[in-house]
Order: sequence, then structure tokens, then C-alpha cells
Amino acid sequence: MWMAELAERSGVAVPTIKFYLREGLLPRGEARGATRATYDVEHVRRLRLIRALVDVAGFRLDRVREVLAVLDDPSVSLHEALGAAHQLLSPAVTEEPTQESRDAVAEVVRAVDSAADPDGRHATAVAAALDTMSRAGQPVSIEGLTRYARAVRELAAAEVGLVAPENRDEAVTYALLGSVLAEPAILGLRRMAHEDQSIRRFSDPS
Amino acid sequence: MWMAELAERSGVAVPTIKFYLREGLLPRGEARGATRATYDVEHVRRLRLIRALVDVAGFRLDRVREVLAVLDDPSVSLHEALGAAHQLLSPAVTEEPTQESRDAVAEVVRAVDSAADPDGRHATAVAAALDTMSRAGQPVSIEGLTRYARAVRELAAAEVGLVAPENRDEAVTYALLGSVLAEPAILGLRRMAHEDQSIRRFSDPS
Repeated sequence: MWMAELAERSGVAVPTIKFYLREGLLPRGEARGATRATYDVEHVRRLRLIRALVDVAGFRLDRVREVLAVLDDPSVSLHEALGAAHQLLSPAVTEEPTQESRDAVAEVVRAVDSAADPDGRHATAVAAALDTMSRAGQPVSIEGLTRYARAVRELAAAEVGLVAPENRDEAVTYALLGSVLAEPAILGLRRMAHEDQSIRRFSDPS
Repeated sequence: MWMAELAERSGVAVPTIKFYLREGLLPRGEARGATRATYDVEHVRRLRLIRALVDVAGFRLDRVREVLAVLDDPSVSLHEALGAAHQLLSPAVTEEPTQESRDAVAEVVRAVDSAADPDGRHATAVAAALDTMSRAGQPVSIEGLTRYARAVRELAAAEVGLVAPENRDEAVTYALLGSVLAEPAILGLRRMAHEDQSIRRFSDPS
């Protein structure tokens, strides 16, 4: 396909596509003469991944570049690429979580028999969040956290089960997109659920 | 209590407390001579709310001020204050969602019998998120969204049920804190669940 069709199918404007080509985030198309090139379905998929990382995950281009470098390294196994890409999704925390919160997260990882890295960035982000909640006077018990982890896990299993990737790029792209893309919807639904609950519980005129 | 104890109990540094006093976000204490004042448990609660809104929800001070103005207006009923404060939690969307996504969210609100405002900011944020997912090539069905809404709702009911507020301020503070404070932990747990799932499903060497 020509550049115009690539723009239409990916939803990314032509000037933006040209910028990604210059920055090396998007591979060159197949040259058709001096100034034109054709693109294929891999370009569409790559553009969708870049936009999801930028628009949804809020990545700056240097972090997008890091993710793409992991995906494009043929010496990295699919297993390793998935782990590394997942670690990049969560930013490094600025403040080291307490050992107590780290231990709580590790206990929950064991309780739900998770293959996630208990020392990885996601786990560190959860531990830091527990510290914030304690400081705000609303600590979470290990039981409460485990209940959350089980509920979230069932949803994740249902989501991932819908995906039947045909190759490595598609597997990693789906794994990352699936994580970040649905987050705003889930947070919004949870806020609506809280709105519903608080209206029901506290709706006496006062 | 004196300012030093207020700082210790709230976890907010003295210079920051003085800044909030100057900005009118925190009510003055009871004067004890020309330069000293004492504070009570309401000051501790107010400081925790401000820090949660700033640190966790990422609010700028002008939005904090809007939330506090709603809480402090005695002419606003508890029901209305909860609704208004919830609307302020979600920023106004910059791009109007499609009617199709708005209809999908309204259908889910009916399906789960929610009291949340189907035209409110949370609902608008969910509709906008659905548009983003469609554009990225991963549309969500109404069935999928309903499944999410049900799961999230069960968790929200369990969370809100833990709270037994004694007065209006406490009810609204808990309702808001409960929504925003746990979000980083929940997103982190969900990312860990996806990490777990993708490692399990795609872990063949390739």
C-alpha cells in the first residue's frame, strides 16, 4: 500500500508517519522509484503500537524507542521480550518502597500463583502504591490485596484468551497493547462503580 | 495539637502546611496568642485529602480548590456533593466521544443497574477510552465491557462497605480517597496479571 492508505488504515497522519520514518521508529517501506515506497500490514501494526504507547501509556519517544528495540532484537527470546517489554511499561519508581510493602506484594504473588516478577517494576509500583495508601491513612490488608489480585487476574485471563497471535511481533504487541489500552476504560468504570456505591450509601439529605 | 504534631500526624511538612494555610486550602487553627494556633482532627483529615488529590490523583491546586469548595458549601446536599466531587475527579475530555461509544456506556450502566451519571465525566472518559481502543484496532464489545463493569462493581462494593463514616466531610473524603488512592495499586496488579498471562501463554522459545 502507498503512504496515503497506510495513514488511513493506521489512523496516523502522513506528517507523523514521515516523522517516525526519519526517527527510525518505523522501518522504511519498499522503494518504488526515487521518492515513493510501499508499506505492508507490519507497518500498520507498528504504527498502532507506537500510537498506543504514546497516546494511552503516555510514553515519550525515547521510551517508545526502548520498547521497539526489545521487540526488534532477534537474540531476545519471546519470553524475555515479553518480560522486558512489561518492565518498560511501568516507570521506575522515584522512591524505594518499604520492605513491608514489598513483602506484602511478594506474598500476594505467591497466593495467586503468579508468574509475574515479584521484584519487577509492576510489583515495585504496587508496593509504592501500598505505601501511599498507608501514608494517607487507608492501609490495605494482604487479604484485601489478594482479593483484588484474584479478581483482576480473572479479567486478564479472559482478555488474553481472546488473542490468537500468529507470530512473535503480534504476540508482544497484543500483550503490551492489551495491558495499557484498556486501562483508561477500567479506571473510568471503577470510578463509576464508586460513584454508584457512594450515591447509594450516602444519599440521605444532610 | 500544635503545628508540629499536625505535621507528624498528617505526614505533611510544616512549610507545606503553612503554604496551604496562606492559600486558604486549610482552615486557620484556633489562635493561641499572636503567632501560634492549635489544630484538630479535621485539619489532619483535610491535609490527607489534599495530599491524596495532589499526589495520587495528580490534581493541580486549582482543581483541589474546586473540590474543597464543593465539600465546604453547606447549601449543597451530601448527595449532590458526592456527585459533583466525583465529576471533578475525571478531567473533562478534550475530544467528544462518538455517539456509538456513548450509547455503549449507557447500555452498560443500565445492564449493571448503576446509579452513576451516564452523561457524567467518568462515563464520558470510558466512552473516549472505547474510541481509543477501536482506533487502535482492539474494539471492546458491550458484553466485554459489561463483564468488566460487573467485576469492578463487586470490588467497589466490598471497598465502600469497609467504610463507616461518622459525618458528611468524612463520607465525601472517603468516597473520593477510596476512588483515587487505590488506582495505582489496581493498575499495577492488572499489569502483573497481564505479565503472568503473557508469560504463560507465549513462553515457547522462538
